[in-house]
Amino acid sequence: MKKIINDPANVVTESLRGLAAAHAELLRVHEDPALVVRADAPVPDKVAVISGGGSGHEPLHGGFVGPGMLDAAVPGAVFTSPTPDAVQAAVAATTGAAGALLIVKNYTGDVLNFETAAELAAAEGLEVRSVVIDDDVAVADSTFTAGRRGVGGTVPLEKITGAAAARGASLDEVEALARKVIGQVRSIGVALTAPTVPHVGEQSFTLGDDEIEFGIGIHGEPGRERIPAEPADALIERMVAAVAEDLPFAAGDRVLLFTNSMGGTPQLELYLAHGIAERRLAERGIAVERRLVGPYITSLEMQGISITLLKLDDELIDLWDAPVNTAALRWRS
Amino acid sequence: MKKIINDPANVVTESLRGLAAAHAELLRVHEDPALVVRADAPVPDKVAVISGGGSGHEPLHGGFVGPGMLDAAVPGAVFTSPTPDAVQAAVAATTGAAGALLIVKNYTGDVLNFETAAELAAAEGLEVRSVVIDDDVAVADSTFTAGRRGVGGTVPLEKITGAAAARGASLDEVEALARKVIGQVRSIGVALTAPTVPHVGEQSFTLGDDEIEFGIGIHGEPGRERIPAEPADALIERMVAAVAEDLPFAAGDRVLLFTNSMGGTPQLELYLAHGIAERRLAERGIAVERRLVGPYITSLEMQGISITLLKLDDELIDLWDAPVNTAALRWRS
Repeated sequence: MKKIINDPANVVTESLRGLAAAHAELLRVHEDPALVVRADAPVPDKVAVISGGGSGHEPLHGGFVGPGMLDAAVPGAVFTSPTPDAVQAAVAATTGAAGALLIVKNYTGDVLNFETAAELAAAEGLEVRSVVIDDDVAVADSTFTAGRRGVGGTVPLEKITGAAAARGASLDEVEALARKVIGQVRSIGVALTAPTVPHVGEQSFTLGDDEIEFGIGIHGEPGRERIPAEPADALIERMVAAVAEDLPFAAGDRVLLFTNSMGGTPQLELYLAHGIAERRLAERGIAVERRLVGPYITSLEMQGISITLLKLDDELIDLWDAPVNTAALRWRS
Repeated sequence: MKKIINDPANVVTESLRGLAAAHAELLRVHEDPALVVRADAPVPDKVAVISGGGSGHEPLHGGFVGPGMLDAAVPGAVFTSPTPDAVQAAVAATTGAAGALLIVKNYTGDVLNFETAAELAAAEGLEVRSVVIDDDVAVADSTFTAGRRGVGGTVPLEKITGAAAARGASLDEVEALARKVIGQVRSIGVALTAPTVPHVGEQSFTLGDDEIEFGIGIHGEPGRERIPAEPADALIERMVAAVAEDLPFAAGDRVLLFTNSMGGTPQLELYLAHGIAERRLAERGIAVERRLVGPYITSLEMQGISITLLKLDDELIDLWDAPVNTAALRWRS
């Protein structure tokens, strides 16, 4: 293992220090428990939107903390769920009378620990709701998951619920919106190489020089099948078909197409893949009305990509376009 | 070689198609010769700012095309200089009476081909100037370079000259500003792994499991020395010292610190490195007043980072903060 780190036990803390130094105008970092919180938290009379999970998927979630998106992110150790007390601390730091929505990716540890934290917060009189995202079409159950995994759809989910909360939506409204997004977002990922978790010190799995893991999880969990490497045209068609046929997305649908790098894929390949996905969707009569291309939910240095489709309507487009100011996503409408 | 591509000969063209599809509001792509041009080019009465070079360093340069930065980018084949006719076409597509500034990284092929293009444009009555950036402190001469290489400093150079041009600065003023930036920006890079050029099909060099190339070039050119892998604290101090002692940057100086991923380094490690660099500079009494952290000038999937320091004053801070709207850099002041 060769990495730009000191002690593997301190990787997350040291990385958070760098995040805080780089983005002091947006966020503050607490080290114990590890939290990333909006610089101006708590924001009065606003529903707090909070997410978190194991580290190693950056910029998810700390890079999405700021006006128009998350109020707090709770990073666990690498590929390890955050503890209930850390989640509870994030709720305490951001949540007032308007309550909080917890966005939880469907991994057993995350689901349990966020649930426990929500109960602890409720016992203190705070109104906290949770939603669980499970957008990965690859497999029905997985290594760390009962049901489908939560993956790339988490990014538009956080953006859209964050925008609604910023506009003053109630907790009921933000929760209903989150369930709507979860109901119409689907993803699939592939891996060309494996990541190496610092405190493990060796690659999470092995892939042959001519193999691709189709349906990979963001922690390197096995997917649907291991396939021979194939040209991008065939691979992207395979990915688009898996996602489009699941919901299903149909001719006439309007979508957000999110082409994501798992970390180690060069941007040259990522945009090439994105262009193919756009054409494959056009052939199906599916209208790509918004795009996001880049490394937004990663698996350390893993080479691979994921494709996420979110079915859009005017409400979701308006919320997607709303201003956001975070380390990783930043625009004004 | 395992990559998300079709024919290695078409990688750049296919990637540009994806870029165009993803960012139609910002830019247009021409395929032969390969060009990325602002969607609203030519912008009347504005100095055109144009750059380019071999592909494989994305988002440099196409990801920086848009209001407040570049008018056009000229991508060559992977790690290969663009041809003079391509550069000339970029000038023709963007340049009016206000003239154009060509920003050239110091590689022999780039310098020759941009010079030839400038002469061809001058013969057609256009006023075109060139500046050559050579900010890499690693080595005096290199594989493809007489003199120092042009690397990470190119990003703030393009941002700052683009901002001045957007505000209506004359060609004389934009050129003088570019020379000022080049005079006070310095960089160094390290590699943990090698990239693989698609049309070559094998890694550009080999590094042992316990080796780091200190002073790597963005095409994998050798640096100062091959060192044993060491903790991040030691490695970042070595990098900061190399850059800070070169200009030199001294106590009391105000700087932009740009911590760049070469492509394959996880963001977890990149922010960790950034945090250490901030502390090392603080210990020297150098004030970090602006930051940029991310993969902005890459070497395909190479794992490694570079550190760039730009000495700031009020003028440069004001231009750095000025609005920019490109695929890779986007903010309002």
